[in-house]
Amino acid sequence: MRENRLRQLWDAGEKTVNAWLGIPNSFSAEIMAQQGFESVTIDMQHGLVDYPASIGMLQAISTTDAVPLVRVPWNEPGIIMKSLDAGAYGIICPMINSKAEAEAFVSSVRYPPLGSRSFGPIRATMYAGADYYKHANNTVLTLAMIETTDAMAALEDILAVPGLDGIYVGPADLSISMGHAPRMDQEDQPVVDAIQKIIDTTKRHKKYAGIHCGSVSYIKKMWGIGFDYATLLSDARMLAMKAGELLPELQAKSSGGKGVGY
Amino acid sequence: MRENRLRQLWDAGEKTVNAWLGIPNSFSAEIMAQQGFESVTIDMQHGLVDYPASIGMLQAISTTDAVPLVRVPWNEPGIIMKSLDAGAYGIICPMINSKAEAEAFVSSVRYPPLGSRSFGPIRATMYAGADYYKHANNTVLTLAMIETTDAMAALEDILAVPGLDGIYVGPADLSISMGHAPRMDQEDQPVVDAIQKIIDTTKRHKKYAGIHCGSVSYIKKMWGIGFDYATLLSDARMLAMKAGELLPELQAKSSGGKGVGY
Amino acid sequence: MRENRLRQLWDAGEKTVNAWLGIPNSFSAEIMAQQGFESVTIDMQHGLVDYPASIGMLQAISTTDAVPLVRVPWNEPGIIMKSLDAGAYGIICPMINSKAEAEAFVSSVRYPPLGSRSFGPIRATMYAGADYYKHANNTVLTLAMIETTDAMAALEDILAVPGLDGIYVGPADLSISMGHAPRMDQEDQPVVDAIQKIIDTTKRHKKYAGIHCGSVSYIKKMWGIGFDYATLLSDARMLAMKAGELLPELQAKSSGGKGVGY
Amino acid sequence: MRENRLRQLWDAGEKTVNAWLGIPNSFSAEIMAQQGFESVTIDMQHGLVDYPASIGMLQAISTTDAVPLVRVPWNEPGIIMKSLDAGAYGIICPMINSKAEAEAFVSSVRYPPLGSRSFGPIRATMYAGADYYKHANNTVLTLAMIETTDAMAALEDILAVPGLDGIYVGPADLSISMGHAPRMDQEDQPVVDAIQKIIDTTKRHKKYAGIHCGSVSYIKKMWGIGFDYATLLSDARMLAMKAGELLPELQAKSSGGKGVGY
Amino acid sequence: MRENRLRQLWDAGEKTVNAWLGIPNSFSAEIMAQQGFESVTIDMQHGLVDYPASIGMLQAISTTDAVPLVRVPWNEPGIIMKSLDAGAYGIICPMINSKAEAEAFVSSVRYPPLGSRSFGPIRATMYAGADYYKHANNTVLTLAMIETTDAMAALEDILAVPGLDGIYVGPADLSISMGHAPRMDQEDQPVVDAIQKIIDTTKRHKKYAGIHCGSVSYIKKMWGIGFDYATLLSDARMLAMKAGELLPELQAKSSGGKGVGY
Amino acid sequence: MRENRLRQLWDAGEKTVNAWLGIPNSFSAEIMAQQGFESVTIDMQHGLVDYPASIGMLQAISTTDAVPLVRVPWNEPGIIMKSLDAGAYGIICPMINSKAEAEAFVSSVRYPPLGSRSFGPIRATMYAGADYYKHANNTVLTLAMIETTDAMAALEDILAVPGLDGIYVGPADLSISMGHAPRMDQEDQPVVDAIQKIIDTTKRHKKYAGIHCGSVSYIKKMWGIGFDYATLLSDARMLAMKAGELLPELQAKSSGGKGVGY
Repeated sequence: MRENRLRQLWDAGEKTVNAWLGIPNSFSAEIMAQQGFESVTIDMQHGLVDYPASIGMLQAISTTDAVPLVRVPWNEPGIIMKSLDAGAYGIICPMINSKAEAEAFVSSVRYPPLGSRSFGPIRATMYAGADYYKHANNTVLTLAMIETTDAMAALEDILAVPGLDGIYVGPADLSISMGHAPRMDQEDQPVVDAIQKIIDTTKRHKKYAGIHCGSVSYIKKMWGIGFDYATLLSDARMLAMKAGELLPELQAKSSGGKGVGY
Repeated sequence: MRENRLRQLWDAGEKTVNAWLGIPNSFSAEIMAQQGFESVTIDMQHGLVDYPASIGMLQAISTTDAVPLVRVPWNEPGIIMKSLDAGAYGIICPMINSKAEAEAFVSSVRYPPLGSRSFGPIRATMYAGADYYKHANNTVLTLAMIETTDAMAALEDILAVPGLDGIYVGPADLSISMGHAPRMDQEDQPVVDAIQKIIDTTKRHKKYAGIHCGSVSYIKKMWGIGFDYATLLSDARMLAMKAGELLPELQAKSSGGKGVGY
Repeated sequence: MRENRLRQLWDAGEKTVNAWLGIPNSFSAEIMAQQGFESVTIDMQHGLVDYPASIGMLQAISTTDAVPLVRVPWNEPGIIMKSLDAGAYGIICPMINSKAEAEAFVSSVRYPPLGSRSFGPIRATMYAGADYYKHANNTVLTLAMIETTDAMAALEDILAVPGLDGIYVGPADLSISMGHAPRMDQEDQPVVDAIQKIIDTTKRHKKYAGIHCGSVSYIKKMWGIGFDYATLLSDARMLAMKAGELLPELQAKSSGGKGVGY
Repeated sequence: MRENRLRQLWDAGEKTVNAWLGIPNSFSAEIMAQQGFESVTIDMQHGLVDYPASIGMLQAISTTDAVPLVRVPWNEPGIIMKSLDAGAYGIICPMINSKAEAEAFVSSVRYPPLGSRSFGPIRATMYAGADYYKHANNTVLTLAMIETTDAMAALEDILAVPGLDGIYVGPADLSISMGHAPRMDQEDQPVVDAIQKIIDTTKRHKKYAGIHCGSVSYIKKMWGIGFDYATLLSDARMLAMKAGELLPELQAKSSGGKGVGY
Repeated sequence: MRENRLRQLWDAGEKTVNAWLGIPNSFSAEIMAQQGFESVTIDMQHGLVDYPASIGMLQAISTTDAVPLVRVPWNEPGIIMKSLDAGAYGIICPMINSKAEAEAFVSSVRYPPLGSRSFGPIRATMYAGADYYKHANNTVLTLAMIETTDAMAALEDILAVPGLDGIYVGPADLSISMGHAPRMDQEDQPVVDAIQKIIDTTKRHKKYAGIHCGSVSYIKKMWGIGFDYATLLSDARMLAMKAGELLPELQAKSSGGKGVGY
Repeated sequence: MRENRLRQLWDAGEKTVNAWLGIPNSFSAEIMAQQGFESVTIDMQHGLVDYPASIGMLQAISTTDAVPLVRVPWNEPGIIMKSLDAGAYGIICPMINSKAEAEAFVSSVRYPPLGSRSFGPIRATMYAGADYYKHANNTVLTLAMIETTDAMAALEDILAVPGLDGIYVGPADLSISMGHAPRMDQEDQPVVDAIQKIIDTTKRHKKYAGIHCGSVSYIKKMWGIGFDYATLLSDARMLAMKAGELLPELQAKSSGGKGVGY
């Protein structure tokens, strides 16, 4: 089975950058996948992507050696299993707020006896190899989003769930859950402290940790405090940012354009 | 943030007509949105529309000032939040039969601390404005469908749920729940009485009320008893009706065509 | 091979009504095909339909016994042959203004030695039967649009082209070509006279004749002067018309909506 | 209402072959539906098909008299009801492991008072007829997948659920649940015994029984022990198999290609 | 009829920036259209966009007041007319190398008696208004690409064609036609001279002039020598550029990603 | 630039097998591309594929090292250039019947000064490398279909056109052009003689030669007389064939299904 390069890199102590896809299109996905990110995540939660578009996007990512991940819209077995069968090498699951939710999530990703995933890796076998079933439980990543005060309270329990590989911090949701404005690259001290606590606890449990970031500098900071991987903006934001940088130089009255909301 | 014109109109005592989209296409959506309806609802429950088609339909509606609503297929957080992120200004949720279901529905629509909506208004910000997060909880409509005897029994509790803006009567489901044939524009007395009770209770709770109708005359009647908004047929039915009106004049043997089932 | 019911009906002196599809969607196509029209035309010229959507629309029409026709965007061999391979039982070709154009059109539809159609009826065989090749040249309809003064001038020559089955009048284009406003159901005398001349000439050549109409009454008039088939509006127009009829009864200020431009 | 031919055949003691669609495309669906299978199942669980593609596939199947079935991705009311409204004549529901799950499944398929299906058969009425509502509860098939040891333990209870029409054995999942390799056409004795027990129990309850098979010979065997219907491979597998059979005869070094994983 | 804001601006001596869309998606189109460009061009020639995707993109652009333009794949009447019917307010036509080609192009865009455009503005009327036909010939822009030595030689003749509104320089094609490497923002003197000659000749003919550019500074230079409008890169390039700028700061070994080829 | 493996293999005297895609879907394309064919051709002429579907199919092929080819619907510059920009490494052009047609075809594929291809390899550069422009003229294959008696008569002239790399025999069209039934794997002596003449003439001109075949044995025969590459059936036929082989063993009355028409 094709190895999960993320596991290899992280186990070797390397830090990785993750691309984020919210535009439901296989060509923009291919452009992003070609840029050199170690992984590319198709965002089915806040992105405008649904399962049908994700197929072409997974194929586009498969033209490169970037590891394909999917953030599912919710902790629901149907879409988790469909994404895996289509070839995702890891699932980022939003809003894991309790041990039970973490267990349910892991169960959807693992074949028996470790979980309850149903068998039918229709495209995954083409991407991964004929021995997919044999190695899938040890290859595919389970990454639980920690993004609420409830999740913070249950963090030890969540991290103790067998089969959970790691976590992913959603800083905007974490912020509003704590009464702060939704923001990436947080500098509000309580949220910064919470992120510090998440990374410390996760590393104590020897799990992988990632976080969504809005700048190169914040990624460097997050790598510095122990995160293994970090997402750099998103396709939609990069597109709006580049136009928003250049256009005001040409239009006296331009405000720099309207940004996308995620 | 772009205001929700429906709230303004209803608060001013105006009655509105809602268009209903079951054809999964952005062009038919644009045709309907151009006709002057105050709101246009994309029906992901009984319509043949799923999330991917809804994006183009929301964009088509956004070429007009009709308020875009989405009826979700079920009371499930994933699709509710995805629809809002894509720019829906209100959610009609089917089969709200208890206080707990109403609370879960409202929670999916409201950001913390009022609910549990996850942050990521990727297209909503483009449609609504950069201050979307600040005003979304007061702008986006939560409309619970009352369409079973269980819902009737729990009506007071449902209407008391904080953050619920109003209700939407599904007359066909209400009818079969009460042992009557599924029908819009009901004249069966028990169903008529139930609708009367719904509007009376809703108005006592000072919430907005709407109902699905099959004719201009029934809409007028419903407006007369207090409903704020009413749906007029659907795109699919209008298309079949117009052909079904004209064709028999040309084909002696024609039965007037086959109607769509919703 | 499945017979072309239009040929049978017309040869028996029957008049037929044709549906017109400009919405690029298989569900609206199925609704229209179910209504009892003898034929259904997918409009790839002015409709928003292109080849990819036409496949699903042809399949939808194939759930009924309505005869599937395609109006191609232009007299171009590629799209004519693709439409036939996908199962169209007749081609309406716009802007046939000369004998040479009519010959080129017919050649694209007929297999050698009558024409130059390339062999590969990939879906047509499923729709029509395994003996498609044997009978296609006698089954598939070639219908040339007569819609300019140039076409009027060349009418005898066009109608004399071997393999041309009939004509289809485009009244709006014919009108503007003659200096009149683009309109269906023309009453401007010069255009009325031109239409009369077209039907007289066509019938003298013993070819089939059709025309695009905007009302039941005009279809009856056209049938009366000899036309074999007539199109009744279009899906897009029917949808806008029905909403435009009903909505003003509910909205004092409504203008009746905005019509589609074709 | 159009009868459900599967019920007729099975009640007459006939055995049927089911086609399985994992390629999300209406043309490959039409090819399969044309081959003579008594039923065709759109696989939304392990197939790469989601609801939007299923519409065109259902239309393609409707060009034939094969009975259209849908395997839903999970036991979730939204997608079950949407599939029925789109015209599915039966639902195969994965992972029914308890009486409660079977009841929930049946409830989603049946209109009140037998269940909680919401009314809106938008395309189903076109496929089935205007009296769809009247007969749907007796026509549409509810087929629960038995594919875990939990399901085996609850088999009597599951089969006793009113409104459940039959079962469908998923041999790969059943195998891994029992600690065996995921495989169709099982010869491992414990799994063979389990299948025997399932068919015996199902037939004692006078319910319909089906199973997913990978070969003609295994289907014959399954028919022999009492199964009413059996699935023969899938579109994706057939495509890979045929290429994999022929290509090695031309390429000395070819391994026969890579198979799809389901 | 909705005015063509480009004509207004250019006639007032304003310079405009044009966005360029090569990603076939309505959401990336909406992001670009929201940024403040005065016009947005859907590139059906070198972009991965074909007519079906262009519909949703035109709708997305219609949510703003940016003027929608289409670059067609070739000087072919079918696609030019389809694009106009779908609501394009201007056509950029590649490879206009002679007077005859310019005349054919203009003829496809203008209704009789000025040209041969066929009538059927199905969506254009919704975008532009009910009086579309009356004003279209004076509103819609015809922009001929000047991008070969043949076109240079025929420049006076091309610019003299009645109904041609302006030109658009394709610097990469012009470069290779002149034996230079394909490049935007040319500094090779012969190509620079050719561009100077094009703008001088165009302005002498009092036509509008535009050019494709790869940077803000080159746009300023082009505006300075008389160009009315200039394209700033493209959606695909902006996306690749932004990722290519940021990623190398995080990946020591990164080469900055792979650029798109246009 | 990524080399064109077909040129390498053929120049080394190797024989290759080509897959043929008529199903407009990226997943069936990926299945076929994974099987080990040296090249995979997307058939936009008789296949149900149009440009939009071809993008995803090209991406799917790009997950393997099979060489992606496109058969265009007609000898038209727009679609030839679009297919190349999307990453096709060769164009098979139907109905090349004269020297002029061959020259026009070659011109559309070659950049100046060898031809008139417009510059904009938007996706081709991602597939091939940053130096695409430099090597494209020597890498991309031009394969003219020889499939009529006119082409036979002009064969010497066609093969003498500079820049033409080879030919592809369409046996069905060649057959009907010669008055025989359309058939692959022809045994009718006049057609067999014609094929012999084509291969002899092509090899005398030192060009590559290919042919469409329906069986392994015929491919071996064609390789034996000098053909470099041969197509083995198509995806649609393989799917229908496999079902058609197996189903009759289970259905006494089955005729073996209905075959696709190409």
